[in-house]
Amino acid sequence: MRILARLGIIAGGGDLPRAVAQSIRADGGEVFVIGLAGSLGESDIWVRDFPHEMISVGAPGQAFRSLRRENVTEVLLAGKVDRPNFSDLKLDMKGITLLPRALKAARQGDDALLRFLVTMFEEEGLRALSVAEAAPGLVCAEGPLGRLTPDDDHRADMERGFAIVRSLGALDVGQAAAVCEGLALAVEAAEGTDRMIDRIATLRPALRGTPGHKLGVLVKALKPTQDAKTDMPVIGVATVDRAAAAGLAGIGLQAGGALIVDKAAVAARADALGLFVMGVTL
Amino acid sequence: MRILARLGIIAGGGDLPRAVAQSIRADGGEVFVIGLAGSLGESDIWVRDFPHEMISVGAPGQAFRSLRRENVTEVLLAGKVDRPNFSDLKLDMKGITLLPRALKAARQGDDALLRFLVTMFEEEGLRALSVAEAAPGLVCAEGPLGRLTPDDDHRADMERGFAIVRSLGALDVGQAAAVCEGLALAVEAAEGTDRMIDRIATLRPALRGTPGHKLGVLVKALKPTQDAKTDMPVIGVATVDRAAAAGLAGIGLQAGGALIVDKAAVAARADALGLFVMGVTL
Repeated sequence: MRILARLGIIAGGGDLPRAVAQSIRADGGEVFVIGLAGSLGESDIWVRDFPHEMISVGAPGQAFRSLRRENVTEVLLAGKVDRPNFSDLKLDMKGITLLPRALKAARQGDDALLRFLVTMFEEEGLRALSVAEAAPGLVCAEGPLGRLTPDDDHRADMERGFAIVRSLGALDVGQAAAVCEGLALAVEAAEGTDRMIDRIATLRPALRGTPGHKLGVLVKALKPTQDAKTDMPVIGVATVDRAAAAGLAGIGLQAGGALIVDKAAVAARADALGLFVMGVTL
Repeated sequence: MRILARLGIIAGGGDLPRAVAQSIRADGGEVFVIGLAGSLGESDIWVRDFPHEMISVGAPGQAFRSLRRENVTEVLLAGKVDRPNFSDLKLDMKGITLLPRALKAARQGDDALLRFLVTMFEEEGLRALSVAEAAPGLVCAEGPLGRLTPDDDHRADMERGFAIVRSLGALDVGQAAAVCEGLALAVEAAEGTDRMIDRIATLRPALRGTPGHKLGVLVKALKPTQDAKTDMPVIGVATVDRAAAAGLAGIGLQAGGALIVDKAAVAARADALGLFVMGVTL
């Protein structure tokens, strides 16, 4: 196992940064968390369990100074980062310097913006790690996670779903899609995976399954353009709940290209609700 | 101008079949409408203005007999057809014979199903026409439809939107997308264009425009896999209303590859609401 020096976690919202911090601590590593004010929600009180500081995305200078003070040389970006409203952003000096490049990157899409953030840390002499490097236990492995496995129809739907996600991903659009008996039920763009799953239940019943008669699959995969250091697709227990409520029969994930927060809990929930969760090598 | 013999219109829901029938009549042609029961809505009373018959999608034998009786040799499919729930469908003899092929096509996606329907009519000795052939006045031309034209940002968003739609279309997913300052706001799958547009207003305000400060574009284009005889993308006055409510600045359409129902009314509404409607040669 890799022995980690003190790692800086640049933490957005959601469960992933918490799972990363806990995984590293469980592996004997130390972390310093920079919570992104505005992206971390009220419920993200987990940061209090770790040495941390809350910083605005407009104040990268403050973040760099804190990381130097804490002797952090490696950083990791995790969690959902709200695209800032650049015109309202309060900027420190470093922020003013970096803004033109940030705006240019933002115009090219989310991936370009995230790649810019990684580059920004690297230019300050910090090494950027991926979640896969720092917390390998969160990475999806090949094969089923719980007891259930996909049948031939599910496999065909997964294959079509992965083709859609890879094609969309190459254009930096989204990393999730849902397919039911060959029909693309929903494709993810700016609304995110949760809302994409939720709208499946609003489609006409003839097109989709129900919690009592499950049909179709959700798939998530890394965008081909995507730097694994930034925004790997991620699922957790809530994703399984949503997929079940949408009448889906299972979830297909790119093995080595997706993260699972709280694997044991995800497997247990999938078993309880009658869904498969499957890692597939693309 | 092409002189039409009596043309059979296989009419699903929405404004397109009405516009086609009216356009052909205005051009001096005659039509016989087969209204698809279940797909035509309560408001589709326009069929009463034309010789017509309502037929279930499970009864193609009845449709073929009616078309022969009416001396129809050319047909055109137009309007939204609800994917039938095959297990509930009441079938006539011809329907039973054709069902296995219909099911196979349905599993391959909407385009495959529509191509099958066209083939089905052709096998009965009927020629299938496209809307573009029968009612060329509905086809989107190159250039702006109303007074407004896209600026450079809009053009960049349209270019990105068309790239997304072409890529998705090649996989038979959808034919519409919305892009705002480089970000893919929404991508169409089974929910259809209307609901895709409507959810843009529910995205975080930092990502999108508003009716008072319009940003971003809706684009629609023919799927590369798509047979122009079946399901050409279409907009009408209601599409302009929806795009305006979603805060979009305009609509980009594939010139020669999209239909506009009631062009004069669409241009007037776009002018009134401050949107551009632009035909672009891809």
